[in-house]
Amino acid sequence: MSEEQKAAVYKPVTRAVVDELKRIIDGQYVLVDDEEKLKEYSHDEVAEEMYHGLPEVVVKPNSTEEIAAIMKLANRENIPVTPQGAKSGLSGGGVPVMGGILLSMERMNRILEIDRTNMMAIAEPGIITNDFSAAVEKEGLFFAGYPMSLLTCYLGGNVAENAGGGKAIKYGVTSRYILGLEVVLPSGEVAFYGGKRVKDVTGYNMVQLMVGSEGTLGIFTKIIVKLIPLPKAKTDMMVLFEDLETAIDVVPRIMTEVGITPTGIEFMDRLTLETSCKHLGESLEQYKNAGAFLIIEVDGNDEERVLNECLDIGEFCTENGAIDAFVAHTPSDQEKIWKLRRNAAEAFKAISPRQTLEDIVVPMSEIPKVLPVLEDLSNKYDVFIPCYGHAGDGNLHATVVKNPDHSEDQWLEILPKVLADLYSEIHRLGGTISGEHGIGNKRKQFLPLVLGETEIESMKSIKRALDPNNVLNPGKIFDL
Amino acid sequence: MSEEQKAAVYKPVTRAVVDELKRIIDGQYVLVDDEEKLKEYSHDEVAEEMYHGLPEVVVKPNSTEEIAAIMKLANRENIPVTPQGAKSGLSGGGVPVMGGILLSMERMNRILEIDRTNMMAIAEPGIITNDFSAAVEKEGLFFAGYPMSLLTCYLGGNVAENAGGGKAIKYGVTSRYILGLEVVLPSGEVAFYGGKRVKDVTGYNMVQLMVGSEGTLGIFTKIIVKLIPLPKAKTDMMVLFEDLETAIDVVPRIMTEVGITPTGIEFMDRLTLETSCKHLGESLEQYKNAGAFLIIEVDGNDEERVLNECLDIGEFCTENGAIDAFVAHTPSDQEKIWKLRRNAAEAFKAISPRQTLEDIVVPMSEIPKVLPVLEDLSNKYDVFIPCYGHAGDGNLHATVVKNPDHSEDQWLEILPKVLADLYSEIHRLGGTISGEHGIGNKRKQFLPLVLGETEIESMKSIKRALDPNNVLNPGKIFDL
Repeated sequence: MSEEQKAAVYKPVTRAVVDELKRIIDGQYVLVDDEEKLKEYSHDEVAEEMYHGLPEVVVKPNSTEEIAAIMKLANRENIPVTPQGAKSGLSGGGVPVMGGILLSMERMNRILEIDRTNMMAIAEPGIITNDFSAAVEKEGLFFAGYPMSLLTCYLGGNVAENAGGGKAIKYGVTSRYILGLEVVLPSGEVAFYGGKRVKDVTGYNMVQLMVGSEGTLGIFTKIIVKLIPLPKAKTDMMVLFEDLETAIDVVPRIMTEVGITPTGIEFMDRLTLETSCKHLGESLEQYKNAGAFLIIEVDGNDEERVLNECLDIGEFCTENGAIDAFVAHTPSDQEKIWKLRRNAAEAFKAISPRQTLEDIVVPMSEIPKVLPVLEDLSNKYDVFIPCYGHAGDGNLHATVVKNPDHSEDQWLEILPKVLADLYSEIHRLGGTISGEHGIGNKRKQFLPLVLGETEIESMKSIKRALDPNNVLNPGKIFDL
Repeated sequence: MSEEQKAAVYKPVTRAVVDELKRIIDGQYVLVDDEEKLKEYSHDEVAEEMYHGLPEVVVKPNSTEEIAAIMKLANRENIPVTPQGAKSGLSGGGVPVMGGILLSMERMNRILEIDRTNMMAIAEPGIITNDFSAAVEKEGLFFAGYPMSLLTCYLGGNVAENAGGGKAIKYGVTSRYILGLEVVLPSGEVAFYGGKRVKDVTGYNMVQLMVGSEGTLGIFTKIIVKLIPLPKAKTDMMVLFEDLETAIDVVPRIMTEVGITPTGIEFMDRLTLETSCKHLGESLEQYKNAGAFLIIEVDGNDEERVLNECLDIGEFCTENGAIDAFVAHTPSDQEKIWKLRRNAAEAFKAISPRQTLEDIVVPMSEIPKVLPVLEDLSNKYDVFIPCYGHAGDGNLHATVVKNPDHSEDQWLEILPKVLADLYSEIHRLGGTISGEHGIGNKRKQFLPLVLGETEIESMKSIKRALDPNNVLNPGKIFDL
């Protein structure tokens, strides 16, 4: 949206508005004028500048009441408000594309309660996911969310995007663990949905409507998280295959034929492993000439049983085309394996910022059919598309990388075509364009490729019902 | 709502409307005029006549297109439409309280696909839950939903009410297993939300908004169900306690101290067990003079391990006040135990139809505090309140039964007071008025006791957005 279009819809943040913000919030947490500082809040992990947006003012509230007052001000003055977490997002969900007020949740980072008896915790949205996990683990409890960015991302962002990650096959995604939310609605009213209850059918499931709404339907201020007993044993293994097809073929069969549901089954192609190894300064020697890799994690309460399950899976894999399989017996070996996978996105970005990390998802059975699609597209458009991701749940982070021989203009012309082709093919396979990263502003133009007008219109009607002035995080998912 | 009030809002089903319905649907599936037949569709399992409602016409569609056409007709003519399943509901959700068109889903009872590789199935809403479960079990798969009414209820009703049941501690409630829905929206447009994908963040989570919406936001016509591998072993046990307090006290500790998450932990007080035994013609001898009973189910893939877990739990219980614990080794012994629990509601209804089966839910830690509340209310209002339910998830089916010494008028005067007191106390304990049965028309007057105006208004705004003419299942959850 151009500056002119924004101005036609929203009003600017005037000096008077800033003064009022400073009356709502301690003045030192209202940033304005200093463009360098504002710029820090203008993007997430999406590199392309076309998906960035400069806020007019950044505020860092410290309470539900402050956020409620800001939303009331925003409605009265017709100013857009964008809530933002750790800026680790991958679809621009927390980027202030319409300018206005950027609401950083960084100060609301407290754990309010860890309730061992009910196996639940209440936390604020700005806590780093890994800090939250570590705190509950001290109490023998386990938060099963495991986004690859867990060392930096916020719990609130996980909820807003319905983060998935590496343990979803066995434990499901973030939504499964969110039982209650205190939410500042777009109107500035405060609602509390759900509670410390594992069953609740009192009215509509507003909690699950809010989860994954990308900050467009409400701003979370307290999150009730269901925890589970911390599994006592965990083993990871790395399995080497000649090629991706052989690797992918065994994935559903581990569950249906071996009868074991691993905690996670991640895969990487050769290019991804090499890139990640180089980025981390790791040797490639042990990985031989294998072309594809599965990282498989099994957990449970019995160490021997977990190990036996790993061995069963390893045996099945070697009987079905694996070159080698090695089990990581120590926590440091386990961490070494996962580090390769967690750093894949970072590693690719380091060598080429001109790329797009995709988040396609297909039914598990269709994964093998995705690989020829990626190969065809690589050939057709003369780009690289390395691929890694969560094989166990069909969520593949294919990454389209600019060919260094192409000019910037060529890349900008090619990219939307590659994505449109890719998404259409994925839709044809029963898949969709985002499994866990969200639509944000990055994928919004492609939404009609996978959702019909009726589906999109029904979603828009809900947005309009809860945010009639369209002041909360406008320009995301769809344009109203 | 009186007949006059209904008439002011909705138009009657005229002969012309019936003729049009007969053009949409095969005429033999359009019932009209025969009041006896219509009456069969006027209620669910809620006995009180004040919660019944006579439809003007009953239609039994056989396809999505027929339902879509009916909804378009209803909007044009301003006639209410109530979708109805197996009439096994416990909150009046499928009762046509405004008259109009009753849409029985009984003919749409097909399983469209069982997909072993993806461990999913697609079914129509009118299939009996137990038939669905049996069909997927034949393929080595497991549908983890287990409402007590599974022998009669429909899958579509489970989704509409977000049914819980006896296996929720370990497996969660129905919502966890619903990945996709074909829905006829109130407007008559057809939407398909979600798909065969375990991760999907493409727009708002309309699937989970629809689940538990009690037939007020859309009519499900196809349901994509996630299945899991069928557990290979299962053991049930019955544990006898002197009193309810001692029984309830061990429940959370089984998970937090023994470290085992059973599939289910059900409890019954003495009165419930006796009533159920008599209803089924079972001997009471083996139950001694125990005052409270836990049914505990453990499942897994290893028979020996499952048995050992049962023994560990049994040992823990006897160390903590249990009188006796016996394990049901054979499937027929297991069925015998569960039959006692499944038939509890039926047994109470057989001896006294003047009663209300409640569905309160509290955080697990608060269960012991509920029992004195029930006792106080029994004394204060001179009624019986036997109690049974899903102890493992805090969902208690306290049942307020009319004192035979009270007149009908006294009962009608007392009942709303008992419920208002009960619900307020439950709310104070962090609980709510329905864990799995829903609000329907039975509990709608009490909703403001547990949800604030902001919460209810936000839900109403969504209903208005999707059903501007309020023609789909009006009079449920709240009045617009």
